[in-house]
Amino acid sequence: MHLPQALNALGSLLGQRLSTSKHDLDLHGRSESYFALTPPDAVAYPQTTAEVQQIVRICAEHGVPVTGWGAGTSLEGHALAVQGGLVVDFSQMDKVLEIRAADMDVTVQPGVTREALNQELRATGLFFSVDPGANASLGGMAATGASGTTSVRYGTMRENVLALQVVLADGRVIRTGNQARKSASGYDLTGLMVGSEGTLGLLTELTLRLHGVPEAVSAGVCAFGRIEDAVDAVLDTIQMGIPVARIEFVDAATAAAFNAYAGTSLPECPHLMVEFHGSPEGVAQDSARFGEIAEDHDGLGFQWSTLEEDRRALWAMRHNAYYAILASRPGARALVTDICVPISRLARAVTETQADLAQASIPGPILGHVGDGNFHSILMFDPENPAELAEAKALSHRMVQRALDLGGTATGEHGVGMGKLGYMQREHGAGWDVMTTLKQAMDPQGILNPGKLIRPR
Amino acid sequence: MHLPQALNALGSLLGQRLSTSKHDLDLHGRSESYFALTPPDAVAYPQTTAEVQQIVRICAEHGVPVTGWGAGTSLEGHALAVQGGLVVDFSQMDKVLEIRAADMDVTVQPGVTREALNQELRATGLFFSVDPGANASLGGMAATGASGTTSVRYGTMRENVLALQVVLADGRVIRTGNQARKSASGYDLTGLMVGSEGTLGLLTELTLRLHGVPEAVSAGVCAFGRIEDAVDAVLDTIQMGIPVARIEFVDAATAAAFNAYAGTSLPECPHLMVEFHGSPEGVAQDSARFGEIAEDHDGLGFQWSTLEEDRRALWAMRHNAYYAILASRPGARALVTDICVPISRLARAVTETQADLAQASIPGPILGHVGDGNFHSILMFDPENPAELAEAKALSHRMVQRALDLGGTATGEHGVGMGKLGYMQREHGAGWDVMTTLKQAMDPQGILNPGKLIRPR
Ligand SMILES: Cc1cc2nc3c(=O)[nH]c(=O)nc-3n(C[C@H](O)[C@H](O)[C@H](O)COP(=O)(O)OP(=O)(O)OC[C@H]3O[C@@H](n4cnc5c(N)ncnc54)[C@H](O)[C@@H]3O)c2cc1C
Ligand SMILES: Cc1cc2nc3c(=O)[nH]c(=O)nc-3n(C[C@H](O)[C@H](O)[C@H](O)COP(=O)(O)OP(=O)(O)OC[C@H]3O[C@@H](n4cnc5c(N)ncnc54)[C@H](O)[C@@H]3O)c2cc1C
Repeated sequence: MHLPQALNALGSLLGQRLSTSKHDLDLHGRSESYFALTPPDAVAYPQTTAEVQQIVRICAEHGVPVTGWGAGTSLEGHALAVQGGLVVDFSQMDKVLEIRAADMDVTVQPGVTREALNQELRATGLFFSVDPGANASLGGMAATGASGTTSVRYGTMRENVLALQVVLADGRVIRTGNQARKSASGYDLTGLMVGSEGTLGLLTELTLRLHGVPEAVSAGVCAFGRIEDAVDAVLDTIQMGIPVARIEFVDAATAAAFNAYAGTSLPECPHLMVEFHGSPEGVAQDSARFGEIAEDHDGLGFQWSTLEEDRRALWAMRHNAYYAILASRPGARALVTDICVPISRLARAVTETQADLAQASIPGPILGHVGDGNFHSILMFDPENPAELAEAKALSHRMVQRALDLGGTATGEHGVGMGKLGYMQREHGAGWDVMTTLKQAMDPQGILNPGKLIRPR
Repeated sequence: MHLPQALNALGSLLGQRLSTSKHDLDLHGRSESYFALTPPDAVAYPQTTAEVQQIVRICAEHGVPVTGWGAGTSLEGHALAVQGGLVVDFSQMDKVLEIRAADMDVTVQPGVTREALNQELRATGLFFSVDPGANASLGGMAATGASGTTSVRYGTMRENVLALQVVLADGRVIRTGNQARKSASGYDLTGLMVGSEGTLGLLTELTLRLHGVPEAVSAGVCAFGRIEDAVDAVLDTIQMGIPVARIEFVDAATAAAFNAYAGTSLPECPHLMVEFHGSPEGVAQDSARFGEIAEDHDGLGFQWSTLEEDRRALWAMRHNAYYAILASRPGARALVTDICVPISRLARAVTETQADLAQASIPGPILGHVGDGNFHSILMFDPENPAELAEAKALSHRMVQRALDLGGTATGEHGVGMGKLGYMQREHGAGWDVMTTLKQAMDPQGILNPGKLIRPR
């Protein structure tokens, strides 16, 4: 890598928007979870696709690694420049370019966050559905294949990205997909890019599917004495085809963390939080049917409401869960697991995980998007205590093994990054070699987010 | 290509299940549409993945092209061995391997047809939703990225294939995806294979998503005086978020063809055919709301029913449309167009197409999955008359140009095959080069369905 030459050329291109200040490097060297500080050599703030193209060309010429950066909220250290080089921060490419309400889609720059997008959409009667807990960037969300609480109804990023503009490793710009709702025209390059974690190209424009704001929404929460009962209620709800828009599980420790963090007074036991979208009669019916299922499984005090303020309070609680849990052990860092299993195996995956955690010396509250078979344990350890980190890793390892044994995946939504690289061989076998082949074909020099996703050289 | 050596080795492997009879070669040299007879050199009928693997290894060793064959119903000559070599017919790999009702998924061999699968699922309360008009194989449907009348509600093959087993060009066998409902673990190889038309690998096992048979179904048909009114009614229905399970358009010529073919008595004008899935109250409400929209657009005599026999008659008519239309011009062959545009452009695409057809000397009835913005014209020409074929091609060409100008795609569901290869450059630009790069990486010898999808060498 010829770093000085590259930085020279990048400086001429970007002026002040190329930074090598310690502050900036440190900001782009940290991650939301437990990975060590890994500052890059420089940070670029492009404003246009043409600039991104120039940046990639310069880096390609000088063999300098290029790693994209959205909002830096990913949980597996994806955006850390582990081989040094340049971080490309998309925060100045934050424009909503075109809202096409009649087609129910929108074109955005990658730095737009999901909250900013929904803010812009307020007047249209439409919304963008994918909602990871953090206020992530849409570019980062596409790059990690993110999902969220509403994916059980509206799908993940895979189902909601219609088209992309991508800068490839050699600086070529391509457009993938189009504005039609479906196409059988060639390989699905859009799908290949979604979840590629910045290793195949930098996303510079995204066309996203929108959904109509439902006429009526009802949301509610139900307590359960035992985790198994809550999970069985989920299974019945999904299998009976009740169209949940959200169905989230939190365990007793999470409920306690909410209470301490936000002054709420949830009973400190497992809960399901649900939401239904439809007509006023439809959501009332769905809520009532869910209530019956919950009762069949000894659910206690299911309450639902169609009032926006009640709903907001409920989901603010859920969306702050990670921070509430972290706050329950001051000074701790977190290793977040993310397994996803076939729904029929969910009860087993959760109860075995629970039993394993009960033996552990560190806390690991469980919560998740159980309608998809996806749940997390937030394993908290003292960063000064290597034995605790080792224990967190061992617990996480057993969870992943369990998920793979049950026909599931190591990561339902957070992605591979650094934390799950060690499971790619077990999960994909020769398929991982194919991923490596694709990467080598598209980025022969290996400059795009090196050290991630494919087999390390 | 060392054909004799390859045939020797294949003969030892397969015995009677390797055929070079003229009858078999001709059967596998014809297509449903207008392409000339193109018999391969031999046809293999494997029964196991291990046999497919051996077949591919032998062909790779001797440089012999390998082209998969499902039910041979594709409309763009996809399965024709245009560079000779071996056709691998999957009809003897036709087992439903495992139905997991609790997980609402199923694993099948590629030769299972969609009708056979739904037959097997009868007792489970579940169904497989994708329904191209023909009784296609599930392997072929995945390979072409097929969709059908219910895709507006349940998605295309892209959304309904969860996992695959694939034999690659060098004989390696990989598994892509898993049984979890979502995964962020690496590149989406399943998505890359869906729609790859047998050019990246042969699909030997598919895990498919199933849906619950709805509690109630209502279906109905409505006549319109003008095509524009019918299309506007579609737009309103989609934009108001009425959850149509099916919404199909047929024009006056198609209605006339139905009547002649099946002795029905539809008014010979444009129609919409719709279906709703849900609770009894829900489908009644949806039907009524659709009825109001239709009336707003001067729809005439909308009738709906929840009786199974009425519904069956309606959809049998729709599913036989292609044959009914062909029968309206005895001896004709068909070139079927397949454009798909953003829904807001649908009215324009349909009316401009209609106007163009009105000037033509050959008939081209229009029908389609309009809820997705996708429609077909069945251009019928006398195979003995080259001027008519030329006219069909010119009409088709203008339709594709129109679709691309309107932000759409040359093919919503039928795929590229031979008929749409000429539009790949215009539709994808440098993206087509990327497809070519991927193909070369995964099949450097170019033995898998050569001559299709990527830039001809
Ligand atoms: C409290 C909390 C809750 C969370 N909940 C969820 C959840 O429910 N579901 C979920 O899926 N995730 C969740 N996450 C994880 C995180 O929010 C997602 O992974 C998110 O998609 C990351 O987006 P980002 O913009 O922060 O990306 P970053 O962290 O900045 O980057 C992520 C990856 O994308 C790449 N990248 C970023 N932008 C681009 C671009 N324009 N082009 C190419 N590559 C790019 C980076 O190189 C990196 O590999 C949560 C995180 C937190 C902190
Ligand atoms: C009357 C009629 C109506 C139709 N309506 C629709 C419609 O509504 N929607 C729609 O999408 N299509 C429609 N089609 C087109 C056709 O049915 C689809 O393209 C279907 O997916 C083809 O499946 P098949 O099994 O016949 O595949 P084939 O025609 O046998 O093969 C298609 C392609 O798939 C490849 N292939 C087949 N099996 C495998 C395998 N196991 N592994 C790898 N590659 C394989 C072949 O090499 C070829 O490239 C219609 C066709 C007809 C005749």
